[in-house]
Amino acid sequence: MSIEPRKALAKLKPYLPGKSKKEIEEQTGRSDILRASFNETPLGPSPRALRAIREFLPDIHLYPEGSYKSLRAKLAKLWGREAENFIIGDGTDEVITLLAQTFVNPGDEVIIGEPTFGAYRLGVAIQGGVIVPAPLLKFQYDLEVFLNAVSGRTRLLYLCNPNNPTGAYIDKKSLEAFLNRLPGHVLVVLDEAYADYAEAEDFPPGNDYLDRYNIIVLRTFSKMYGLAGLRIGYGLANRGIIYNLNRVREPFNVNQLAAVAAEAVLDDSEYLELSRQTNRQGKTYLYRRLTEMGLNFSATEANFIWLEIGADSKQLVADMLAEGITVRGGYAFNNPEWIRYTISRQEENERFVRTLEIVLSRYKAASRT
Amino acid sequence: MSIEPRKALAKLKPYLPGKSKKEIEEQTGRSDILRASFNETPLGPSPRALRAIREFLPDIHLYPEGSYKSLRAKLAKLWGREAENFIIGDGTDEVITLLAQTFVNPGDEVIIGEPTFGAYRLGVAIQGGVIVPAPLLKFQYDLEVFLNAVSGRTRLLYLCNPNNPTGAYIDKKSLEAFLNRLPGHVLVVLDEAYADYAEAEDFPPGNDYLDRYNIIVLRTFSKMYGLAGLRIGYGLANRGIIYNLNRVREPFNVNQLAAVAAEAVLDDSEYLELSRQTNRQGKTYLYRRLTEMGLNFSATEANFIWLEIGADSKQLVADMLAEGITVRGGYAFNNPEWIRYTISRQEENERFVRTLEIVLSRYKAASRT
Repeated sequence: MSIEPRKALAKLKPYLPGKSKKEIEEQTGRSDILRASFNETPLGPSPRALRAIREFLPDIHLYPEGSYKSLRAKLAKLWGREAENFIIGDGTDEVITLLAQTFVNPGDEVIIGEPTFGAYRLGVAIQGGVIVPAPLLKFQYDLEVFLNAVSGRTRLLYLCNPNNPTGAYIDKKSLEAFLNRLPGHVLVVLDEAYADYAEAEDFPPGNDYLDRYNIIVLRTFSKMYGLAGLRIGYGLANRGIIYNLNRVREPFNVNQLAAVAAEAVLDDSEYLELSRQTNRQGKTYLYRRLTEMGLNFSATEANFIWLEIGADSKQLVADMLAEGITVRGGYAFNNPEWIRYTISRQEENERFVRTLEIVLSRYKAASRT
Repeated sequence: MSIEPRKALAKLKPYLPGKSKKEIEEQTGRSDILRASFNETPLGPSPRALRAIREFLPDIHLYPEGSYKSLRAKLAKLWGREAENFIIGDGTDEVITLLAQTFVNPGDEVIIGEPTFGAYRLGVAIQGGVIVPAPLLKFQYDLEVFLNAVSGRTRLLYLCNPNNPTGAYIDKKSLEAFLNRLPGHVLVVLDEAYADYAEAEDFPPGNDYLDRYNIIVLRTFSKMYGLAGLRIGYGLANRGIIYNLNRVREPFNVNQLAAVAAEAVLDDSEYLELSRQTNRQGKTYLYRRLTEMGLNFSATEANFIWLEIGADSKQLVADMLAEGITVRGGYAFNNPEWIRYTISRQEENERFVRTLEIVLSRYKAASRT
């Protein structure tokens, strides 16, 4: 009476989800939780998105328009492309899975940075592919490492730009030199989940390279667009790549409320600009205060900051939680003495810094005794 | 500059979605479209679901609680099971894909009825599995055919109960005899998408058999529960099967509005009862009228009726659409002279019958000249 799973799955463990806002409120007995562990926007949802959802509610008993035509047309306009250059996913996570299903056979290799976003690995593992790690150097991309990792069996190569959890980015010159040297059998997956926050002048949007290289750009509505709970993201690539991904996409893979909300946020320039401003202000403040505290941190082009706490991050995550603040522990990225903090609103950033100072000073006092 | 997909995908074509409500309104210039091609509820969404969604809207910028704990707990209570017996999917379609990813290696066999729901095939094809067809006999299940199709390489066997598109069901005695004879290496997937509508006294809910046999029951919120646009369904099985499916499930695979809406509909007994009543009334009416018209149809335990029109269903679908009614053509199920009509509200069913009479009489007149 037991049915064995495929052998390729032997090492895969089910994902253990973090606690929900409600659960954390119950656990801590607080209602003032500052959630800074998921890189969500601190602004709440876009008012335009909410309006679009409310208007669509009477039709939620109907199946979605399964090609998400209207949203793709809007994205095409935004990027100067055509609707056929886009695939909409149940979060970018689904597009990542579709990429593995489409291109990775057992034994094929996929090059993935370290540390980086964990989700790139799942799809590859399911397909029986081989993950080839490419370490970042001092949390920065050195694309030489990625080039050296390429073999005849390499199918995909993931670049998260800016990188999660480090905030580092690949500049235009480095990316172009890399693309010119990369063998033509490798598909570059340029995950731009955080690119909306990038301000560096030499930050290179992947869209500029689609015509000359094998690239798919991944974008999400979960961060600056404020729709993480609705699960929607997309891939942008040449038609051939999109066509092949559509072979494995389920019809109706994305819920219709996400699609109408995404369209609405694309028009909400006021909301998006406020997001950029808030992040810019927070970054300036945090750079200054963390420097004053003598903490080591990585420069960021994203909406989070990666910093060295010189203590066990598991302990710090627990101690910050007791004060009502959730941060992401670096142990999850094999850097146990670092944490990732989501840049929030000014008063929230101040609370974070104040609380971090108190918690770290407790550690110092304890180590002195 | 081209990246080849896996060879296993060579025969897969992207899904061509049907037109949305809005597109059909534009195409026909009508606002009175009767949409009877997707087996959606004719009642619109549950008021309780709408309320739950509205209340949750301020939090849609936050990632979902990725284990859908609260919904699973509610389902556990409903079915007399535990939360660990459930996996929540981005529609039942996703659970179907996860099943193939978890259990089907290249060359493994999956037995699928004919005609039946088309989505069972996609996941199997992606995995390089072999689809073994098991024809229904006069649109009824003969499980002998399924037993004869079993080989040493069979991994999954799909039973859609009641069956889409025929409405036929497998009775308790037949199912039990079948389960007792089925070899232990085969996992039975009992798709109960339409079981909420079943009224036959000997209809066997799959939940009764989970402890003794290798079964996973699939249920959806897209039909009677009125949430097709939100994409949510679930699998119900023993813990071992659910654990293995969770190995390949993406974190946050289901949007949070779907999860809160699903919980709310589970409590909306008034709405569900109205759905059952409406369907019962519609069935009685349609049985009578279609018989009067001399049309051949299949008895149904679902919310649709499968009927023989004695004409090309592609043509009929177009002619009905011109009158503002969408039905599903049997050509999509290799039965070109049949159609599937979603049982709707009384006045809508009357309109369907009236329109069908007119369209069919035109065909008769044309064949006489």
